[in-house]
Amino acid sequence: MDGDLINSTWKLLRRPVGMLQQGDLELVHEPVQPPAEGEVLVRTLYLSLDPTNRLWMSDTEQYLEPVGLGAPMRGVTLGIVEQSQAEKFPVGTLVIPHEGAWSRYQTLSATKIARLHLNADLPLSAYMSVIGPPGLTAYSGIVFVGEAQPGMTVTISAAAGAVGSVAGQIAKSRGCRVIGIAGGPEKCRWLVDELGFDAAIDYKSCNVAEELRRLCPDGIDLHFENVGGSILDAAIGNMRIGGCIALCGLISSYNSSGAVVGPSEFQLVLMRRIAIRGFLVMDFFKRAREAYAELEKLVLAGKLKWKDHIIDGLQNAPDAMNLLFSGRNEGKLMVKVSEV
Amino acid sequence: MDGDLINSTWKLLRRPVGMLQQGDLELVHEPVQPPAEGEVLVRTLYLSLDPTNRLWMSDTEQYLEPVGLGAPMRGVTLGIVEQSQAEKFPVGTLVIPHEGAWSRYQTLSATKIARLHLNADLPLSAYMSVIGPPGLTAYSGIVFVGEAQPGMTVTISAAAGAVGSVAGQIAKSRGCRVIGIAGGPEKCRWLVDELGFDAAIDYKSCNVAEELRRLCPDGIDLHFENVGGSILDAAIGNMRIGGCIALCGLISSYNSSGAVVGPSEFQLVLMRRIAIRGFLVMDFFKRAREAYAELEKLVLAGKLKWKDHIIDGLQNAPDAMNLLFSGRNEGKLMVKVSEV
Repeated sequence: MDGDLINSTWKLLRRPVGMLQQGDLELVHEPVQPPAEGEVLVRTLYLSLDPTNRLWMSDTEQYLEPVGLGAPMRGVTLGIVEQSQAEKFPVGTLVIPHEGAWSRYQTLSATKIARLHLNADLPLSAYMSVIGPPGLTAYSGIVFVGEAQPGMTVTISAAAGAVGSVAGQIAKSRGCRVIGIAGGPEKCRWLVDELGFDAAIDYKSCNVAEELRRLCPDGIDLHFENVGGSILDAAIGNMRIGGCIALCGLISSYNSSGAVVGPSEFQLVLMRRIAIRGFLVMDFFKRAREAYAELEKLVLAGKLKWKDHIIDGLQNAPDAMNLLFSGRNEGKLMVKVSEV
Repeated sequence: MDGDLINSTWKLLRRPVGMLQQGDLELVHEPVQPPAEGEVLVRTLYLSLDPTNRLWMSDTEQYLEPVGLGAPMRGVTLGIVEQSQAEKFPVGTLVIPHEGAWSRYQTLSATKIARLHLNADLPLSAYMSVIGPPGLTAYSGIVFVGEAQPGMTVTISAAAGAVGSVAGQIAKSRGCRVIGIAGGPEKCRWLVDELGFDAAIDYKSCNVAEELRRLCPDGIDLHFENVGGSILDAAIGNMRIGGCIALCGLISSYNSSGAVVGPSEFQLVLMRRIAIRGFLVMDFFKRAREAYAELEKLVLAGKLKWKDHIIDGLQNAPDAMNLLFSGRNEGKLMVKVSEV
């Protein structure tokens, strides 16, 4: 055992207000806790940064316990076993902790990690992205929740994001007509020219409701919502009778405190018999194998493209988080914590 | 042909603001139009008064064309063939027009009416009520939309109304625990003592959210919503993870103009993975036979009770409508237009 290993961990000092600020988190350096019998020491390779992390820092009602003040910040990670006291996970095994942290190291029971099954043709970062939780989220919303069928008109907000961009391509692969909503001409061009979306709406320069009306004259069959607020309102106003909204995220509100008011024309949910279905990726972990198999097939066939936006160094995690809320990330945002 | 028959019809003169007022509708007397070949003259026996009628008088977006200014007011009716030029519908046949009106007579094509299949053990008014559209609405929300299963906790707003009271009893018959929300101690007593609800909350004297929390400590599996506004907010705040809201009506807003703002804590739809499903009875006409068969069986077995609130005389229809919006009707509201 190497008793000299020093861990670095971002701990939550206070509940952020608005964007993350210096002093909300603190980078703490402590000696690594050596693994006991049945445990492993995992060195983090990648830390995923996701909009939902911001929720975990707050104490509003959410789907997991909020991160406690003084506790290590929670995050999805991918790591490698550095020291092992568990036969099933020898040193060098790539693993995904059930609950990762914004840490260089984690000492974990072997019952709290899963082995990563790597395809040699794919970069490791893809498992944090297109074939990781964002990919599974996208797949769940389009396939399990939205039950996309050929010929459907599908719209997607935050369409250039890690989830939205994959969701759109899955819908395309299933024969849907897909329209993305994203911020800025570059993102919109990327969606149409590179990813094969049928159209893209730049919410920064267009009236989204009007553009949706023009592009979806027969109404939207399935809307994949990541944003909430006025974007959701615009979608609801253009839903087809009997259409479905797969509610995946409400990023427009994650930096606010207090309640999130619902759609401004809620009566349309009744008049048009819309189904709004909130969902979270963790509800579909049990169907992950089926989803990842299809995603990998699409990736290897060149039918599913993605971008990873990789920030170097754990010390930069809090600043990087804010990129998500200003839409400045390009592709799946993650931190490279250490080299394989 | 009796050329002397005079029809009486309520026509919509202007779009009401708030409660219906004198002058919004006008009772017009005109000679009856005798039936041509393939047509029948239907004399109205019962006219159903429903919250949705108020919507039809407005020109906000809705699920049918608003009633035109100057046109006969639309309504669900049950009638008897008085004169016939259609072999399939001899004089004396009981019929339901596809589109009824607030009229004493309607001259209709035989293709625009359906024969009523009457069970001799039941009063005619039941076919406007427990075995009519309100019963089908209740059944659709609990069975087709909400997919109620034994052991579920089901809550119902406007629970003493024509739809809510039937919905609760259907849920009880399927093994659910049922809690009604209604206005006033008498209605609440009726729900529990007569209809067999497990509990009832008087929204006029209780904090609904707190009472729901107390009565549904494990959360609500299925909420049948007829009201909207603060009642819906209270329900959403007490939904179980993965619960369903069958959105049947938003009566709290039908007298208002303008948009209906959505739930005040919309983020809970995501955090708790709630499904909100708007539905209308007309979407389930195709499954009416199955629903009516079960409803009739429950009624004949004494397991489904109901009240009809019958107002005498077509001239009283507009005043009667307002009973719905002040909660002063007791049971299914309808107008007896003429005797069999």
